[in-house]
Amino acid sequence: MFKHILLFKQLEIMSLTDKLKWRYATKKFDNSKKISADKLDAVLEAVQLAPSSYGLQHYRILVIEDAAIREKLRGAAYGQSQITDASQLIVFAAETSIDENFVKNYIDHVADVRKTTRESLATFESVVSGSVIARTPENRLIWAQKQAYIALGILISATAELEIDSCPMEGFDPAQFDEILGLKEKGLTATVIATIGYRAEDDPYSQLAKVRRPKDEFFIHI
Amino acid sequence: MFKHILLFKQLEIMSLTDKLKWRYATKKFDNSKKISADKLDAVLEAVQLAPSSYGLQHYRILVIEDAAIREKLRGAAYGQSQITDASQLIVFAAETSIDENFVKNYIDHVADVRKTTRESLATFESVVSGSVIARTPENRLIWAQKQAYIALGILISATAELEIDSCPMEGFDPAQFDEILGLKEKGLTATVIATIGYRAEDDPYSQLAKVRRPKDEFFIHI
Repeated sequence: MFKHILLFKQLEIMSLTDKLKWRYATKKFDNSKKISADKLDAVLEAVQLAPSSYGLQHYRILVIEDAAIREKLRGAAYGQSQITDASQLIVFAAETSIDENFVKNYIDHVADVRKTTRESLATFESVVSGSVIARTPENRLIWAQKQAYIALGILISATAELEIDSCPMEGFDPAQFDEILGLKEKGLTATVIATIGYRAEDDPYSQLAKVRRPKDEFFIHI
Repeated sequence: MFKHILLFKQLEIMSLTDKLKWRYATKKFDNSKKISADKLDAVLEAVQLAPSSYGLQHYRILVIEDAAIREKLRGAAYGQSQITDASQLIVFAAETSIDENFVKNYIDHVADVRKTTRESLATFESVVSGSVIARTPENRLIWAQKQAYIALGILISATAELEIDSCPMEGFDPAQFDEILGLKEKGLTATVIATIGYRAEDDPYSQLAKVRRPKDEFFIHI
């Protein structure tokens, strides 16, 4: 009898919605708890699968564990403890040089993965290049940064699914982050960050009621 | 014996990562298939739970089913068939007037939900207001739009979890969308859209190999 009850229990799986209710912007992480390698892999693979405009993936992802680097980055993020105490610090860094060459390399990669000719992708390439050229350099960067925020949304979902805590953060100095991480030389700039790991049992923020705009104000049904 | 095998089968649940591999930017929806009311509710609830800077939720979500309106919107989106053929069209519309009054209303709501005094939130309010005031109106809008992209990432995850297809889209004219939907009067502007529903069996795009930057190029481990 007990066995059947246990099996039944295993089938009570929380939906993503339930897990998004469970999560909160963690202010205090338990610095003794690390995300296991397989769970971290699963989260990163989900983030890699994030869609982006034309599939360009206009950003790269830094996964930072190094304690000394994190100590420096904390100083560039108003001293927030999550930077050093979380299991990992994730930096979403937008590409600063989205241009025709970036598109060319992307189309090469598409042809390679899909085992097709470059000629068959000529129209697609001209559409993507046209879309890039139509934007000012400043707008290309904003465009790239917006794509990175989609990936942040996927990270929030993927960590929640695995009951990993997260704290997305905009409170940091991008110029200092770029300097500390040598991002300028890589053609990147820090756009948004997230700390991931496990909440400290005494984080008072975990007890606060979640505040969201009410459904009838937030959604407009037409 | 069979019973046990069946039970075991039920436990083989696809991970979010597997489901993100399953999804793709659907180009052709089966216009006879509608998302059930309970699944649509679950997706919208997940989107409502998307985190945002300071929790401001700088955008609203339009859920559009009306056929005549969608026909008009399709004309403002290069005639793309997803607009009319998907089960629903979701429009992420950023707030165009993020100001001290917007913050004041938000803090009122926080005090209400958390059953706390406004006085106890005075420091938080001054931080949030300060962050708003420090931005130019243009930067406030870009900030709001970036938050909407987090919600788009959550929508992608939540639909994939329920094996609902999706197509995030930037290929539309925001000014025309604003006009058709009367968004200007609501203090909103169309930022990014997504169509959700079920793929047509003959959508050739469902057969294409997924192209993503290789792990060793996409991730930087420090």
